[in-house]
Amino acid sequence: MVAARYDVLGIGNAIVDIIARADDDFLLAQGMRKGAMTLIDEARAAAIYAAMGPATECSGGSAANTVVGVASFGARAAFIGKVKDDPLGRTFMHDIRAAGVAFTTSPAADGPSTARSYILVTPDGERTMNTYLGAAQDLTAADIDDAQIAAAEIVYLEGYLWDPPQAKEAFVKAARIAHRTGRRVALTLSDAFCVDRYRDEFIDLVRKRMVDIVVANEAELKSLYETADFDTAVRALQRQAKLGVVTRSEKGCVVVSPEALEAVAAFPVDRVVDVTGAGDLFAAGFLVGLARGKDYRTAARLGALAAAEVIQHIGARPAVSLQALAAENGLAV
Amino acid sequence: MVAARYDVLGIGNAIVDIIARADDDFLLAQGMRKGAMTLIDEARAAAIYAAMGPATECSGGSAANTVVGVASFGARAAFIGKVKDDPLGRTFMHDIRAAGVAFTTSPAADGPSTARSYILVTPDGERTMNTYLGAAQDLTAADIDDAQIAAAEIVYLEGYLWDPPQAKEAFVKAARIAHRTGRRVALTLSDAFCVDRYRDEFIDLVRKRMVDIVVANEAELKSLYETADFDTAVRALQRQAKLGVVTRSEKGCVVVSPEALEAVAAFPVDRVVDVTGAGDLFAAGFLVGLARGKDYRTAARLGALAAAEVIQHIGARPAVSLQALAAENGLAV
Repeated sequence: MVAARYDVLGIGNAIVDIIARADDDFLLAQGMRKGAMTLIDEARAAAIYAAMGPATECSGGSAANTVVGVASFGARAAFIGKVKDDPLGRTFMHDIRAAGVAFTTSPAADGPSTARSYILVTPDGERTMNTYLGAAQDLTAADIDDAQIAAAEIVYLEGYLWDPPQAKEAFVKAARIAHRTGRRVALTLSDAFCVDRYRDEFIDLVRKRMVDIVVANEAELKSLYETADFDTAVRALQRQAKLGVVTRSEKGCVVVSPEALEAVAAFPVDRVVDVTGAGDLFAAGFLVGLARGKDYRTAARLGALAAAEVIQHIGARPAVSLQALAAENGLAV
Repeated sequence: MVAARYDVLGIGNAIVDIIARADDDFLLAQGMRKGAMTLIDEARAAAIYAAMGPATECSGGSAANTVVGVASFGARAAFIGKVKDDPLGRTFMHDIRAAGVAFTTSPAADGPSTARSYILVTPDGERTMNTYLGAAQDLTAADIDDAQIAAAEIVYLEGYLWDPPQAKEAFVKAARIAHRTGRRVALTLSDAFCVDRYRDEFIDLVRKRMVDIVVANEAELKSLYETADFDTAVRALQRQAKLGVVTRSEKGCVVVSPEALEAVAAFPVDRVVDVTGAGDLFAAGFLVGLARGKDYRTAARLGALAAAEVIQHIGARPAVSLQALAAENGLAV
């Protein structure tokens, strides 16, 4: 096994976020499921945009946010995902490269436009996402570069990749290459409703050890194991997974390994402005820790730190250097 | 004189801001004049974008930010400015209308793309702007709707309008209609270097009373009267203008009328994140106050409140309802 060129390589939907503040009545009037990610078509996208308030555009995408977080920690990151060669696609490409992430997936020359997520942030800081997948649907196994996968310590995949029809093959191809070259594969369950759509397949991935590390929040884990009881869900994960980490917002997280369950506290936060990216940035810190050979507790602390940073401002990517923030908090990367 | 339909109608360059954090070394390496607005061509825009970090896109434009602030105070606002019918132009149109501002200027079907300003925010919160005027250059007198101008209590014009070649005629046309219908005309000097480009014309506008209300910051006023001494500049303004207000960052502002100089304090701020829009939002509060018949001191307090809000986050438009914020601070609009 050669030395890795990347600490983390993420594969996911390449999305630009269009973020506006809204009150709960707006969500209700629009029939939106608060806190969830809902897939929409282009007509619904236009209707939501027409109805929503003044917006800010920032590059997003779950795994993309994570690898940007990885780079912000001073670690080496790469991303694979599909945009169209249109203004939003060029924005996405600029932003991820400017963040220091290697990104070489060729943009689609035609077909649907770059994916966008219309995100409504309510006064409690919760985000409700409406995603038009567009060009992200055209990610295929052909976009997976064997050598790049083999060069990454951890390959990180988002459960959202089960939504575009062909991305699953890309996912499986990447996982196979990773394992053949002695690397680890991590999966985030992404969203409780996404888990609902692909429960059996996700469980299969975990049980068959196609996935080495499972990242989930409490709602996603409960959805996976169809239980309302957190402890039941955690024990099920412990039986099936090589390693898991379950985030619980302000209650911190639990690292789940066959040997032990370890609870790690959240970092204190002055005011929650926008939880968009909380899970993505937790994953960034946790994976950087694992890739760099830290113990689980330190990895979870790095994740908690990154999540605390991103929920204190609008947008799903860090506003400061996570490397500097970690150093200030006595956490070496 | 019929009752006004709008408290404030703004005329300005319709711009989308592309905002990134940068350190002072970046400004130096790029040869940028810190704190200023510099006009750039399309090639320079591409070069700056390629070199700058991950960015956030928000609608901007000085007078546009001001009228959005006016609407946020619960007052009635309108805007005239030129975008192209392209993705950024549609973003601008969505955002200003979604903010509650009447905006009916027809977008250009062809020609240069919608104006953008590449804004670098340094760790001290200062912003350095590089503006590609694009479609904003195509604003002409034909875009000025007589009835709309006549329906506005105050017509607010930005000094930046002197940069696009034909906008000056639009400015003069609007001012004439306003005065013919008994309305007031306000002008912001916009930028010290902008003043340097058009000093004689700006002084002429003030002396000939084409402008009733002058809004400036300290640097712009000193540039206008070519003096390093603030008191000298203020006395010159007092001699020439019907009414002026000069902002001085954390030192508050001075309202300059022929009868008196009145200093008004700034609102305290926890942390300055991004000063983009500080002057624009001060103008929003001040003009709302004047349009609603408040005394100068109350108008200046409304301006100071709006400026304090906008400098505590990224972006040049308010993140909260200024009407609610004013009420919380005991200021009725």
